Amino acid sequence: MNSQPIGVFDSGIGGLTVVRSLMEHLPHENLIYFGDTARVPYGSKSSQVIREYAIQDTEFLLSKNVKMIVIACNTVSSVALDVVIKRSKLPVIGVIQPGAETAVKSTKNKRIGVIGTPATILSNTYTNTIRQIDSSIETFSRACPLFVPLAEEGFIEHPATELIAKEYLFDLKLKKIDTLILGCTHYPILSKIIQKVIGDNVNLIDSGECAAHQVKKVLEETGLKNLSKLKANLEFYVSDLPHKFTEIGERFLGKKMGKVKVVHL
Amino acid sequence: MNSQPIGVFDSGIGGLTVVRSLMEHLPHENLIYFGDTARVPYGSKSSQVIREYAIQDTEFLLSKNVKMIVIACNTVSSVALDVVIKRSKLPVIGVIQPGAETAVKSTKNKRIGVIGTPATILSNTYTNTIRQIDSSIETFSRACPLFVPLAEEGFIEHPATELIAKEYLFDLKLKKIDTLILGCTHYPILSKIIQKVIGDNVNLIDSGECAAHQVKKVLEETGLKNLSKLKANLEFYVSDLPHKFTEIGERFLGKKMGKVKVVHL
Repeated sequence: MNSQPIGVFDSGIGGLTVVRSLMEHLPHENLIYFGDTARVPYGSKSSQVIREYAIQDTEFLLSKNVKMIVIACNTVSSVALDVVIKRSKLPVIGVIQPGAETAVKSTKNKRIGVIGTPATILSNTYTNTIRQIDSSIETFSRACPLFVPLAEEGFIEHPATELIAKEYLFDLKLKKIDTLILGCTHYPILSKIIQKVIGDNVNLIDSGECAAHQVKKVLEETGLKNLSKLKANLEFYVSDLPHKFTEIGERFLGKKMGKVKVVHL
Repeated sequence: MNSQPIGVFDSGIGGLTVVRSLMEHLPHENLIYFGDTARVPYGSKSSQVIREYAIQDTEFLLSKNVKMIVIACNTVSSVALDVVIKRSKLPVIGVIQPGAETAVKSTKNKRIGVIGTPATILSNTYTNTIRQIDSSIETFSRACPLFVPLAEEGFIEHPATELIAKEYLFDLKLKKIDTLILGCTHYPILSKIIQKVIGDNVNLIDSGECAAHQVKKVLEETGLKNLSKLKANLEFYVSDLPHKFTEIGERFLGKKMGKVKVVHL
């Protein structure tokens, strides 16, 4: 069981930032990644459709005999964690709980901001999770729909991105938050501009990075950790291989991707 | 046959700008619109996946007993016109040929620019179609991936949109084009900024508007025109009904939408 891969899925390529963190913290774990690039993005769609897609993504990973499932996508973690747990009957790690816990530990003034896709923000899952941990904390949320296409287009330090960030983050800045959850896997790509606009006194929380720590903890607790010291095996699957996929993917992964296979769900 | 509806499909809501033109020019034609909002956008995906989706969209319209099919989406018109014709065996109007013909008539200096999604630009369909009409015309193309999310987010006259437009259109401006094809149904929403950036001396061609004229012509030629003078019936179907759908849809349609039905393909 221990040498079986961890399955990671995402609506597209954003989840590769989570794979990057997993590789860093768990270099001997075999990984299988599935990105639903034929139907990306999920974040602007209804929760009903997102839940259907999440079940199909889970079934693909189960067919690959994974030992654990990591939902790299904040949108899926927000609206479909329960269906993935029910369908897979495996340990499932979403990005919301680890991100929320880290933010609660970080805040001093008990004012936390959350940014994400429209579906993530509309679900209120971050707010509800934070309140369950500490009901005295106030949260302030904002959907930032243009951050995903800006990150994918490579407008990383572009003046247009800064203008848009100023508009999106204006209210959060007024609320005097001291902690901001980057509630979408694409947003760490834009963290430099987000930090500049929101101010140096605000601690940015990368929920994908937090999830990688949680995966490590659960592997140890459940005895599922791979004890092999061999170089880990990484496999990448997508539902479509569009133009520039590898170029964008490697920007997110921070290294060469190797072979990517296309599967039809 | 004549009172049967015209079927219009698009990857999402952008095609409503084409419906707007059809309603204006053919007020007595019954229309059925299908927007594949569960899988939008198509323009960043591979032509193989787009062709599969186009077949499914066509089959939905055929199940509604349409008399003609209008492909409102430039991306589908660019890479999948042949499969829609083959599957439907009906008159099929795409947006490329009408847009290209109008641009050829418009240009004086024989230099035409084309902007569209990555899939549309990569396909070279506009360039090939223009060259078939007049091989002495030079074309210059540029994919503008951020224009779709900017239009959907309502950043219509936003300084960030202008900055991005300046970057996207910089090379086309240098090429001294006198005609620019708006090769995506979303782009007419941004025409004010596009015109400002590219200059008043450049004639913008709305390919959806051109397609509406072509539909009128074909209806007359084939005797398929609806002779009834009753108020036309409009039906809207989508594969997902996301948050803010009606708000964005009405911005594109230019009027109230009425009831929208969700169908699973």
